[in-house]
Amino acid sequence: MRIRLINPNTSAAMTEKMAVAARAVAAPGTLIEAVTPASGPVSIESHFDEAVAALGVAEEVRRGEAEGAEGYVLACFGDPGLLAARELARGPVVGIAEAAFHVAALIATRFSIVTTLPRTAIIAEHLLAQYGYAQHCRRVRAADIPVLDLEDSGSAAYARIVEECLRARDADGIGAIVLGCGGMADLAQAISRDIGLPVVEGVTAAVKLVEAVAGLGLGTSKFGDLAWPPAKRFTGAFAGYSA
Amino acid sequence: MRIRLINPNTSAAMTEKMAVAARAVAAPGTLIEAVTPASGPVSIESHFDEAVAALGVAEEVRRGEAEGAEGYVLACFGDPGLLAARELARGPVVGIAEAAFHVAALIATRFSIVTTLPRTAIIAEHLLAQYGYAQHCRRVRAADIPVLDLEDSGSAAYARIVEECLRARDADGIGAIVLGCGGMADLAQAISRDIGLPVVEGVTAAVKLVEAVAGLGLGTSKFGDLAWPPAKRFTGAFAGYSA
Amino acid sequence: MRIRLINPNTSAAMTEKMAVAARAVAAPGTLIEAVTPASGPVSIESHFDEAVAALGVAEEVRRGEAEGAEGYVLACFGDPGLLAARELARGPVVGIAEAAFHVAALIATRFSIVTTLPRTAIIAEHLLAQYGYAQHCRRVRAADIPVLDLEDSGSAAYARIVEECLRARDADGIGAIVLGCGGMADLAQAISRDIGLPVVEGVTAAVKLVEAVAGLGLGTSKFGDLAWPPAKRFTGAFAGYSA
Amino acid sequence: MRIRLINPNTSAAMTEKMAVAARAVAAPGTLIEAVTPASGPVSIESHFDEAVAALGVAEEVRRGEAEGAEGYVLACFGDPGLLAARELARGPVVGIAEAAFHVAALIATRFSIVTTLPRTAIIAEHLLAQYGYAQHCRRVRAADIPVLDLEDSGSAAYARIVEECLRARDADGIGAIVLGCGGMADLAQAISRDIGLPVVEGVTAAVKLVEAVAGLGLGTSKFGDLAWPPAKRFTGAFAGYSA
Amino acid sequence: MRIRLINPNTSAAMTEKMAVAARAVAAPGTLIEAVTPASGPVSIESHFDEAVAALGVAEEVRRGEAEGAEGYVLACFGDPGLLAARELARGPVVGIAEAAFHVAALIATRFSIVTTLPRTAIIAEHLLAQYGYAQHCRRVRAADIPVLDLEDSGSAAYARIVEECLRARDADGIGAIVLGCGGMADLAQAISRDIGLPVVEGVTAAVKLVEAVAGLGLGTSKFGDLAWPPAKRFTGAFAGYSA
Amino acid sequence: MRIRLINPNTSAAMTEKMAVAARAVAAPGTLIEAVTPASGPVSIESHFDEAVAALGVAEEVRRGEAEGAEGYVLACFGDPGLLAARELARGPVVGIAEAAFHVAALIATRFSIVTTLPRTAIIAEHLLAQYGYAQHCRRVRAADIPVLDLEDSGSAAYARIVEECLRARDADGIGAIVLGCGGMADLAQAISRDIGLPVVEGVTAAVKLVEAVAGLGLGTSKFGDLAWPPAKRFTGAFAGYSA
Repeated sequence: MRIRLINPNTSAAMTEKMAVAARAVAAPGTLIEAVTPASGPVSIESHFDEAVAALGVAEEVRRGEAEGAEGYVLACFGDPGLLAARELARGPVVGIAEAAFHVAALIATRFSIVTTLPRTAIIAEHLLAQYGYAQHCRRVRAADIPVLDLEDSGSAAYARIVEECLRARDADGIGAIVLGCGGMADLAQAISRDIGLPVVEGVTAAVKLVEAVAGLGLGTSKFGDLAWPPAKRFTGAFAGYSA
Repeated sequence: MRIRLINPNTSAAMTEKMAVAARAVAAPGTLIEAVTPASGPVSIESHFDEAVAALGVAEEVRRGEAEGAEGYVLACFGDPGLLAARELARGPVVGIAEAAFHVAALIATRFSIVTTLPRTAIIAEHLLAQYGYAQHCRRVRAADIPVLDLEDSGSAAYARIVEECLRARDADGIGAIVLGCGGMADLAQAISRDIGLPVVEGVTAAVKLVEAVAGLGLGTSKFGDLAWPPAKRFTGAFAGYSA
Repeated sequence: MRIRLINPNTSAAMTEKMAVAARAVAAPGTLIEAVTPASGPVSIESHFDEAVAALGVAEEVRRGEAEGAEGYVLACFGDPGLLAARELARGPVVGIAEAAFHVAALIATRFSIVTTLPRTAIIAEHLLAQYGYAQHCRRVRAADIPVLDLEDSGSAAYARIVEECLRARDADGIGAIVLGCGGMADLAQAISRDIGLPVVEGVTAAVKLVEAVAGLGLGTSKFGDLAWPPAKRFTGAFAGYSA
Repeated sequence: MRIRLINPNTSAAMTEKMAVAARAVAAPGTLIEAVTPASGPVSIESHFDEAVAALGVAEEVRRGEAEGAEGYVLACFGDPGLLAARELARGPVVGIAEAAFHVAALIATRFSIVTTLPRTAIIAEHLLAQYGYAQHCRRVRAADIPVLDLEDSGSAAYARIVEECLRARDADGIGAIVLGCGGMADLAQAISRDIGLPVVEGVTAAVKLVEAVAGLGLGTSKFGDLAWPPAKRFTGAFAGYSA
Repeated sequence: MRIRLINPNTSAAMTEKMAVAARAVAAPGTLIEAVTPASGPVSIESHFDEAVAALGVAEEVRRGEAEGAEGYVLACFGDPGLLAARELARGPVVGIAEAAFHVAALIATRFSIVTTLPRTAIIAEHLLAQYGYAQHCRRVRAADIPVLDLEDSGSAAYARIVEECLRARDADGIGAIVLGCGGMADLAQAISRDIGLPVVEGVTAAVKLVEAVAGLGLGTSKFGDLAWPPAKRFTGAFAGYSA
Repeated sequence: MRIRLINPNTSAAMTEKMAVAARAVAAPGTLIEAVTPASGPVSIESHFDEAVAALGVAEEVRRGEAEGAEGYVLACFGDPGLLAARELARGPVVGIAEAAFHVAALIATRFSIVTTLPRTAIIAEHLLAQYGYAQHCRRVRAADIPVLDLEDSGSAAYARIVEECLRARDADGIGAIVLGCGGMADLAQAISRDIGLPVVEGVTAAVKLVEAVAGLGLGTSKFGDLAWPPAKRFTGAFAGYSA
């Protein structure tokens, strides 16, 4: 099975880190193709970054369909462009935020999220509400570190994240932590060891959920609102999408 | 006051129709600048269309800021790119879906939405939930007409819309109808006359809400998650956004 | 346009203060007629005060209809008698709590309320839930000052309110503050300057929303549950309402 | 125990009917004092009627406290003035809508409401949401009969109500019916016999809940927002409330 | 009236304590038959304990029906097996968690729960959500004491509970406390005296609600999903349930 | 990996059918051990059946732990005893209702459930609410067939189910169907072919989710409320659980 792992930001270092994490959990027959959009923000830390990144995601799904990808992982915790990506794909498309919520809810009754920046906490809140996990999540906590600090694994960022995880563990009444950034894909096991409770990381979780859905012979529903987008004309820079 | 009315799709006929409707309700001192993005879909009927259109919206808000726009109306019922647009603007930014919900809730305890296509009903549902109007809306009804049929006012589309509005009036226990497409901007009064209850249309509603917020000396909060997006590098086609 | 600004309590000083604030934001053609019911509590600090005040509101709306008022602002943060007032009016009727919630949601994703007394916080909570803003409001905070202390602008009350606003700004993850009392109508700008984020005040917000709805050619729906109350007999002190 | 049964409307015939129903279920030691406010609407069929009736309720609670009432039933399905009444009372105060919801939830997982007029259905919906019973109630159904038709037990109203109850039974997936009007106090048993499932009527339910709360040695909490209203000055017709 | 008070755990000391509390509030004609299942956990402090206890509850309801019980109290704060018990009974069946929530909501707008162990707080949260009381409950607080410490009334447990109740009173903005364990049945009055606000205890509350429902001539609905369970074959240890 | 597939009812035919379905989707390295409790109901069609079945589930998980099971599927659509099972297990435990909801939400924005009996629809509704999928599910539909009719694949039951699925497809605005009974494990593909939209079946879905969670190196959280149940004494028939 060929899963296209799309890093919505354009940081190749982060794509590589996520590819390593994804391959570490992929089933024997799964091929992880990690891609970075040619155009987009180097990190996603605002609604605007998300809007731009969603285009890169759509572009990569279109390319994936042409190249025979059988499933997709959207590797940014805001799940940018998720529903658009689903419209464009035959196979399953899973965002890393939703993946982490699903898995956390299967192993604990309540979890907290530890993310990077306070300003993106609202994105997580909106997703929790839309996906139905608002009650399962006790609190969205921000370690207050820029996303790209995570490129460099040995940084002070790790200590800050662990510190916030410990606070969540001791104060929130939870059974698991969800890491709220694709750039933390390599940290889950170390953090879990350091804090003593399960840590769910979205990139790896999404890989397994894509495999799971595909393993059921299912893909994105092409009946209803996720059916292929109606063919139409696009203008200007997007004329290539016309059909 | 200069309000930039952004039609997220690239149908100039629809932009013009919405500009006329907007100007008909604008306050004496308000200047409506109606714009159509250079690049994008000619109509918005899917999540993918929305994702592409959000870019055009962001682009037009950036241009608007440079040209001194003091407020913005996003004239597609899915409010594509709304939060991104807010990050990019100093003045108020109002989407036509949210505008219609706000106004309908001020004049009736319950309303129903009559939109174009069944497949975009889910977008309205997501917005109702995110904005807090899920309880106020009895039902999202689709007249099952393509968006561009609305370009031509004399079409059979009108009859279909009225028919669905009558069903809503008689079955839903409501006090008002919300029209669920920017392309219906010219129809509100005629429909209201034909069905005998208030009809709220988003383009006009949004103009008045932008004026209202600006009239309070308020604009988009630049404190918290709607503050200016962090400056960063963008690559490829979006390199121009780098800062 | 003639807007009747109804101060549900009978403090003339507060009515005057609110009238000044309302006129400062009203559009050129808008005439603000500020009225104080002849009968009622001098301040509204309990459910009982609200119930009595609702009668004064209804009375003033009836009078307003007779005298040609085209819209109404109910200037107490509990929006007492709002739905009754709507039944009695042809034009738009807007409460200052709902107005503040609407406007705050247009400029920020999350807000907190700073009100006067802890015991009335429950009223704000009930309104947030009924209007659909429970998710948008992070917290209802009480500065713990009696309403009438606000009559005297130079009092210690101001410092207490600012203090609570600063706590909200620093702890709540918000983009705006909503002031939870009509008696704070004159304080919004000063507080905003002192705390550095937008402050939404309901009296002024309601004036602009009434203008907005009226500017759309809309009034309170007379179809459904806000239609004129069925004519009937009233007895005793209320016999005058018989029809 | 002395329970004051307050009929918020001023129809003496309805008060008498409710008194009979209340006494039929009251415990041996319970004395039902049924009262009709001197001033108010003869029936409650609108938000305005409710606002006026709330005053009569408050008045009767104040009188009840002076005369030694130990508990109160508010016998109109909109529970008008309930929280105000609680502030004014030492003993328990129970509205008939809430009472019916509580009891129905104890004997069935889901219920439907059958009320009189379509226009008051919204009042029931608001109460269901505020009290927490929105999920338990499948549907609010209106038999479309004026409240005062219920004064006369032999009328066609009964047939209409039974008809609507049968529809609810067969279509709603419920275990019980809640009757949505105090004027139906005498009909519960007959309807239950006719339709074959439990019918919960609020007047009788409220009597038993007042007895239950009092039997626990509990009354309305005087700690927090239901404590006695702060003493203050009232003006005009309400000057008598000054303290 | 014969009410069967079922203590789902097998601690006879606790059963006796609850029986005393129940009899202290029961109406003159009410006979409290307190029973302890022959098989089950000595205390209920986990989901597993609950699952086992639910069997004991069902067993005791079956026995109760055979012996003519007219109503049931399930005296464990997790309401284990409540819906199963209802299917098996003709009369009303009330759990002590739901009973406490109902009564607390009748005397206060908001309450907090003080329970024993942090790990069972989730059970209370699930019940609050299912019963519709999530908004009424400010916080579920755990005094962090094992359930069986409550067998011995003079223990340090009492001080811990009062301490937590005081925190709730001072921080939560509430009007009443709900005690979150059947083993606290004898403590309500003392705690209320010590903390100065109403304390609702579930065993006593449930007795009064069972009496209330029965006093209305109502029992568990036998129409819909609480009708008698379909007769079928059971195997092994449960073969006795076959019908 | 050894997954213990627990059929909570005691129908060996159904266990076998589910085992076949499970094995058809299991990964190469996965061993499905399908078990039937020695004691329990032959089908689960009521709350009481569920309560009894939960014991069988717990028993089988305990046995599984002793025998080295690494994950569990609870194969009844009510997920009986799910949280108790999680407390008793080190590996992941997934119920088939939750599994189906998770998978359906990954491939469609909205789904409907088609189950067997009207009386068990309430169980699905409670689970949807607790798990957070109430908004994703449009409707719970019952084909009105007894569970054991599904033992015999060629029966009229199949036609009834397809008929209800078609109604859901045409009326509910959905993208997928969830089959609401473990006994339908063999029908998903045929139904999907007959109705033309994806059909999610819980037994198979749960197998893949257990594999997914285990593949992440995760199991049930042993921190918080799903930690091992506190050791204690059990009496009577359950004395064997004492520790």
